[in-house]
Formats: sequence, structure tokens, C-alpha cells
Amino acid sequence: MRYFFEIAYKGTAYHGWQRQEGVPTVQEIVEEALKTLTGSPISITGSGRTDTGVHCRQQYFHADFSKPLDTGKFRHQLNSFLAKDIAINDIRQVEAEAHARFDASFRAYKYLISTQKDPFLTDRAWKVINNLDLSTMNQGAALLIGKHDFTSFSKVKTQVNNFECEVFEANWSMNGPILEFNISANRFLRGMVRAIVGTLIPVGMGKVPPESVSEILRDKDRRKAGTSVPAEGLYLVSVRYPEKIWTN
Amino acid sequence: MRYFFEIAYKGTAYHGWQRQEGVPTVQEIVEEALKTLTGSPISITGSGRTDTGVHCRQQYFHADFSKPLDTGKFRHQLNSFLAKDIAINDIRQVEAEAHARFDASFRAYKYLISTQKDPFLTDRAWKVINNLDLSTMNQGAALLIGKHDFTSFSKVKTQVNNFECEVFEANWSMNGPILEFNISANRFLRGMVRAIVGTLIPVGMGKVPPESVSEILRDKDRRKAGTSVPAEGLYLVSVRYPEKIWTN
Repeated sequence: MRYFFEIAYKGTAYHGWQRQEGVPTVQEIVEEALKTLTGSPISITGSGRTDTGVHCRQQYFHADFSKPLDTGKFRHQLNSFLAKDIAINDIRQVEAEAHARFDASFRAYKYLISTQKDPFLTDRAWKVINNLDLSTMNQGAALLIGKHDFTSFSKVKTQVNNFECEVFEANWSMNGPILEFNISANRFLRGMVRAIVGTLIPVGMGKVPPESVSEILRDKDRRKAGTSVPAEGLYLVSVRYPEKIWTN
Repeated sequence: MRYFFEIAYKGTAYHGWQRQEGVPTVQEIVEEALKTLTGSPISITGSGRTDTGVHCRQQYFHADFSKPLDTGKFRHQLNSFLAKDIAINDIRQVEAEAHARFDASFRAYKYLISTQKDPFLTDRAWKVINNLDLSTMNQGAALLIGKHDFTSFSKVKTQVNNFECEVFEANWSMNGPILEFNISANRFLRGMVRAIVGTLIPVGMGKVPPESVSEILRDKDRRKAGTSVPAEGLYLVSVRYPEKIWTN
């Protein structure tokens, strides 16, 4: 039977989600903990990948078990095997065909930029940038909303053929001294959020007009978008599924 | 001329505020940075001490300079010399007699306890504790408000003679999955907040009635209070001064 696991992690110590030879990844750490706990190798499938150093407040993965889990007890045990920077927040049984990646219909990311030195934000927000104009950045961000081909905001080396994403929201706000970008979509391409933020910063600095965002989308050329911003400010904050996947 | 510096720091890497031989402290790091920046040794006086691992969102220290500072530029330069976990948030000139410790009339602390595993709270909150009863803890906390002799909540080895403190507020609240204790007073004794939290936890567990807090105060005996809780959950959040100390 299949279970969905809700997971959160601080990404600083990991080379992202996906298992890779010779470097620590979240997938590997979780699979090792599951193996220790159950005594058999268990492979997990995440709702998506995150890059090196990217944080995650909510992501899901699925895994199959031959017998029913006592989910409360299993979660507690699994958390005690996992390092402090990874937490399993929920375990729920799903329909046998439910798939953590293919069934996800909504994903949301947050990107944090400090506007002043903050001892509590090391590895948790991008460096201090001041004098970014919130309203022009929001004008640029608004042009991303809807269905578009995001080729210009995707890593060039990617196995994807379809570059269309539907962006539901994209906006900047001030949260105390922290500048926060929130974006949600049905799906994201590799490096997409960091390329979008890197494109909107020159807009906020007044170097590029907000309308250039539409031109960049139209050109379908990664070289037209801005430089990708660092991983430390990026958080995957939410992944959602249709109600029908959950059993009961 | 004398200046007040507003400082914040993540305490994990430091043996508290006060300079001590052979271990890194915030005072030493700041004094070294000031020496590098000005070329002469400068000694600073903090509004109070913090213990090893205690965090600080706002504290003040004073320092004297022979000529006026360009405070904006000086703050920027000082921050660039200081490590990521220490920030100077403000520099203001004060009256020549103003004293960061003696003139402080209000201090506030916060103590955080996790109620679930959180990858983002390592070193920033005490371990997971569940099933603490908020209302009995608040009944116990309320008995601390007002002027009392806090001998029972002070470290035994201390150079202080006066144990009277006036507590202005003391209460527990839930902030999402985080249990938060806020306490403010005119002054605090060494180890006082951690001893208070350690006394209120058995109250929240139902092991001790809330009224016992009054008996513990009355007994003036450190052995009657609870075990001190760890430093990692403690934050000095605010220090205030009378308006008259600031020179325009």
C-alpha cells in the first residue's frame, strides 16, 4: 500500500533532493532512515526536485509498504532517525495509483531578500539589497501570471519537452525588513524561480522597465532573462493534490 | 563623546556577552572590530550580560570616541567587519553621562519551546514538548508580576546584593507550533528567565500547582525553583532607556 509523506528540510547541508553519487541529498538520507527503520530497502518518489541549498517548508514523497503503517508511531520513529534539519510532518495513506510528482497540481515557492544585516538569516535569505522598488517589481511580476512558455526562465540542460506553466500568483511584499517574493503555479521548470527573481531585481533597481518581462517570455531564450539568484533565499512552501488521491 | 550602539546576535557560537579569557564572546568580537576600524583600543559597556548560547534581538552598549562619528557610515563599516551572526542596527549619540547598564529601565526576554520537530529551529528553540497546559502556566506566570525578591530564581554565585525586580509582564502564548514565553521587568538576575521557565514547565505538566510559584518566591531558596532550561530557546528582545539620555 502507498503512503504520502509530508516533509520539510533546511537545505543548507544538502545537494538538493535528488539522490546523487558521492554527495549528501535529502532523498538519500530519508531512504537510509526508512531502510534502518523497516529493515528493507525502500525507494521514495518526491513531488519534484530542489537544487543544492534550497529550503523546503512542505514537500511530499510517496513510498510503498507491504503492510499498513501505524502512521503516528512510524512518523515519530522516522523523525528520531532523521537529522535535526529534516522533519516528517505527516504520513497519509493514498490510493494505490496516486503519484507524488504526477498528481501534484499546485506548487508554491517563496524567495527572501534581506534589506538589513540580520544575524538570524544566515543561509536563510539572500544578501542585503536596498532601494528595490516594490511597485515596479510587482508590475513586472504580474506579467508572469497565466499560461506562458517559460523557456527563457528554465535551465538550458533539462529533460523536459513542455515549457508551458500556468502561474497563479506572483508578487512581492515587505515583511518587516525582509523582501518576500511569492509565486505559485501548476508546475515549475528547473531554476525557474531563481531566474525570475534575478530578472525582477534589475526591474526593481530601475535598470530595466517592467514590460521587458513580456518580451523575455516571448523570446524563449534563457540569455534574455536575468542572472539566477542564489539558492539560500529560496523555499518550496507548498505542494497540493486533488482531494481524490487520499483514501477515506 | 559617548554613543549607544544597538546590537543583535545569534548566540550559538559565543560564550555569552562578557569578555572572558580563552573563549569567544560577543564583547570581545565587537571590541576587536572597533579596534580594527578605528586603530585604537575601545572598550564597550553592555546593558547587561547574556549567558553562553543565549540569543539577542536587541541590546545596547556604550563606547566613547574622541571625535564625532558619521554614524551611518560607521555602522556600515562595523557591520562589514563583524561576522554574519552579529549585527549593529543603530548608533546614536547620547549625553556624556548616559550609561548602557545603569540607565536601562526596561528589559524583555522571550523563551521558545517547539511543539513539533522543526528543521528551521535547531539552536533557536528548546526541544519538542507537548501537552503543556497554557492556562495553568499563565496562572503561575501571573504570580510573578509586580515587585518581588527573586532570590529563588537567581544563580547562587552572583555579585548582586539586591534581589528585588519589578516584573511588568509574564505570559505564555502559542505562535503556530511554537510555545512562547514573554517576560519584561526593570531588571533581571543571572539565570532568572531560565529558572522561571524551568519552574513553570512542571506547572504546565500538572505536576505542581500554579500557586506554588508564590511559595517559591517567598522561600528565597534557589533549590525550591525548577531546573534551569537550556540557553538555545532564550532571546533578549528589548532594552529601553528614558528619553532624556538621547542627544537630539
